[in-house]
Amino acid sequence: MKKLSLAVLAALLPVSAMAAPKNIIYMIGDGMGPAYLSAYRYYMDDPTTKAVEATIFDELWVGVATTYPDDDTIVTDSAAGATALSTRHKSYNGAIAVDHDHKKLTTMLEIAKHQGKATGIVATAQINHATPAAFVAHNKTRKAYDEIANDYFDNKVDGKFVADLMFGGGTSYFERKDRHLANQFKQAGYQYANSWQDFNKIKSIPALALLAPVGFPSTLDNPVQQPLVQMTEKALKLLSSADKGFVVMIEGSQIDWCGHANDVACAMAEMHDFGNAIKAAKAFVDANPDTLLVITADHETGGLSLGANGIYAWNRDVIKAVKQTGPVLAKSLVKAKAAEQKQVWLAQTGLKLTDSEWQALSQQINQLAPVYAAKDWSKETDVLEAEADLLEPLAKQAKKLIDKYSNTGWTSGAHTAIDVPVLAYGKDAQLFAGFQDNTAIASKLLNFIEKK
Amino acid sequence: MKKLSLAVLAALLPVSAMAAPKNIIYMIGDGMGPAYLSAYRYYMDDPTTKAVEATIFDELWVGVATTYPDDDTIVTDSAAGATALSTRHKSYNGAIAVDHDHKKLTTMLEIAKHQGKATGIVATAQINHATPAAFVAHNKTRKAYDEIANDYFDNKVDGKFVADLMFGGGTSYFERKDRHLANQFKQAGYQYANSWQDFNKIKSIPALALLAPVGFPSTLDNPVQQPLVQMTEKALKLLSSADKGFVVMIEGSQIDWCGHANDVACAMAEMHDFGNAIKAAKAFVDANPDTLLVITADHETGGLSLGANGIYAWNRDVIKAVKQTGPVLAKSLVKAKAAEQKQVWLAQTGLKLTDSEWQALSQQINQLAPVYAAKDWSKETDVLEAEADLLEPLAKQAKKLIDKYSNTGWTSGAHTAIDVPVLAYGKDAQLFAGFQDNTAIASKLLNFIEKK
Repeated sequence: MKKLSLAVLAALLPVSAMAAPKNIIYMIGDGMGPAYLSAYRYYMDDPTTKAVEATIFDELWVGVATTYPDDDTIVTDSAAGATALSTRHKSYNGAIAVDHDHKKLTTMLEIAKHQGKATGIVATAQINHATPAAFVAHNKTRKAYDEIANDYFDNKVDGKFVADLMFGGGTSYFERKDRHLANQFKQAGYQYANSWQDFNKIKSIPALALLAPVGFPSTLDNPVQQPLVQMTEKALKLLSSADKGFVVMIEGSQIDWCGHANDVACAMAEMHDFGNAIKAAKAFVDANPDTLLVITADHETGGLSLGANGIYAWNRDVIKAVKQTGPVLAKSLVKAKAAEQKQVWLAQTGLKLTDSEWQALSQQINQLAPVYAAKDWSKETDVLEAEADLLEPLAKQAKKLIDKYSNTGWTSGAHTAIDVPVLAYGKDAQLFAGFQDNTAIASKLLNFIEKK
Repeated sequence: MKKLSLAVLAALLPVSAMAAPKNIIYMIGDGMGPAYLSAYRYYMDDPTTKAVEATIFDELWVGVATTYPDDDTIVTDSAAGATALSTRHKSYNGAIAVDHDHKKLTTMLEIAKHQGKATGIVATAQINHATPAAFVAHNKTRKAYDEIANDYFDNKVDGKFVADLMFGGGTSYFERKDRHLANQFKQAGYQYANSWQDFNKIKSIPALALLAPVGFPSTLDNPVQQPLVQMTEKALKLLSSADKGFVVMIEGSQIDWCGHANDVACAMAEMHDFGNAIKAAKAFVDANPDTLLVITADHETGGLSLGANGIYAWNRDVIKAVKQTGPVLAKSLVKAKAAEQKQVWLAQTGLKLTDSEWQALSQQINQLAPVYAAKDWSKETDVLEAEADLLEPLAKQAKKLIDKYSNTGWTSGAHTAIDVPVLAYGKDAQLFAGFQDNTAIASKLLNFIEKK
């Protein structure tokens, strides 16, 4: 009896619970509350089979985590969330790895670097955005993008840069006229890419790749296929050469941005890219068993729900047919000839509207189209943002129709305080099972990193 | 090294994973999506301490479960949800333990009874409501309340009643003129109570207690303290006498009803009663280690979120101050003298309104007050429901103010398809860890029940 019992126990847990894993892959789905995992499962479901297939998220789901910050709001922002996940200390909303007195909190990558490990950050936002920033830099406010970017070069551990590998967006901040950080990194020995072509040429660390001026285009609109998967695969390959192992933070940055925009088709495309990046990370763990993969979110965004307005149904087929995010769809519509607007709508959304719905939408299109056409966009410093601002009412109307027909619900353009999923795989993954505070995730990881 | 490893493993898992647990306590929080657990934690938080205290739900949280029914809606109702949780088979919305062809699906209590175990159901709804019904009866529609109640007497396993213990509401269905089921049960040897006084006199099973005509009053409004805790403690005490162990389903029925009403103070009071009932069940497990406690939900209700309208805060203090559910608050307001309305509002909600908010509310009160006063309520068959219908606009307005000041969000008056929490404690609890389909929860439990 006793022998069998222990065999069962041994099968359920990895045998080598003693030594810390050599490599840590830490993935953060920004804004990825639990409803995003449910939604993605039904969105991906094979309609030809009876059962709903489990996704990669489901396969690795082991626990949940709180997200509340260190003030009385309960609802965290990404800066406080990332600070907790990186430093194991809660702070105020807006804090980048500093406490209430603006004192620096040592980050996970600083500790890893001190331990002689290779370190990296990967994001589809600009790399100096709140989440990656709280792993590499310190600032009293997340909004100080230039200062934070400077800190990526200036903040050193034992005379070394904090991150050996940085993949994401951000040429606007790192190729500035007042300080060309990219050139400074190059001079310090970093391989540098600011295009996908050059990205493919990067062969070793240290490396910096900035593949968009600010954040990447939304994955749903991006002609580059699965950008996070591409970056994840390359990051793991390059970092795996490190003798003492590595710690990398990989962020699905824009799940949150789609949530803020209450754009469910946008969110599902980001979840798909993030999910496939997780698959790539899992494959790495399978090939390199001395690796721990932990995945969580910093908070939920939007108050997403599957079902709305008193109707007992969530119609994922409506969402699957949508091919553009709100702003890009709005642009397609105002740029279309009047006679072709309906055709463009149907091509991009597949959604048949009632006459009155189409009339209302068409009115909005025809109101904005001449304003859009007349505007001299060359005068704008950020064309995409200026376009999005002008077209926002139309984008909103389009998204509301998609929500209505799919019964997708949202309660906010900001974050909410629901607990977030915790996924884990590989060495010591079982330590992340069950309920925990977000700082406990960081503590467990830091205990491993500090061990060596 | 090896010894330590095994010690660690043994500490993490119960040693006796071989034999099925003798007793199973299966608790279902109807409508209890994950946001309800997060909300309850912050609602209960001790404001004098820095950290937010974990609740009983957090302590036992081990996994999550899908809830989708066996049609293409993705969003389940409580009947299909309970059918899956009881029979391990998905069915259509509305089904009470029958499949698409209206063929009976054997329920968990039927199987337990066949195995010689004692069986019970406990609910704060009427005991023939969808969730308990799918454990005891069979019907093609949950709406056939009388037929379902009849089935509680007529449906037999090996000549025996399916449930030895039934605590909840429902005299309207069991003390009918056309068929007095309560008397029939009494004649068949059941102890019977239809008041809390008589409930306290019940000393053994079989027993039937119907403590309200239909469902219980909402816990927030109920002068009876913690009704579910009282019923849970007595049920476990009585059932524990069974030689071959027992299976009991205990439902926190009205978390769902508060969700349908989008009434967050109502929901928190139900969570508190359900949480304390879980504590009572956990104490039973501690005293009777050969027991497995599993807790889940059939679905989420309302699309609840902690945070709304673009604001980064959830103000639980607003909710903690509310002392009545929407309909009862509305009744307090229309029954108050004109000069005392504001005082009543403040006493029952603690919420200071702007002048214009109070004006709008006061207008609604004064519009409904004369209608309410003039009505001959004695002519109504269901006074509470008729009152609630009349006062609904006022109740809704009041709840919207509470939501606004607390930043509580809702997307629906119906259910949503987000995955629900799975909690477990006691013997073999670890089998419920991670992600699973709702039918898998039933399968695992039925495997145990069928073993003996």
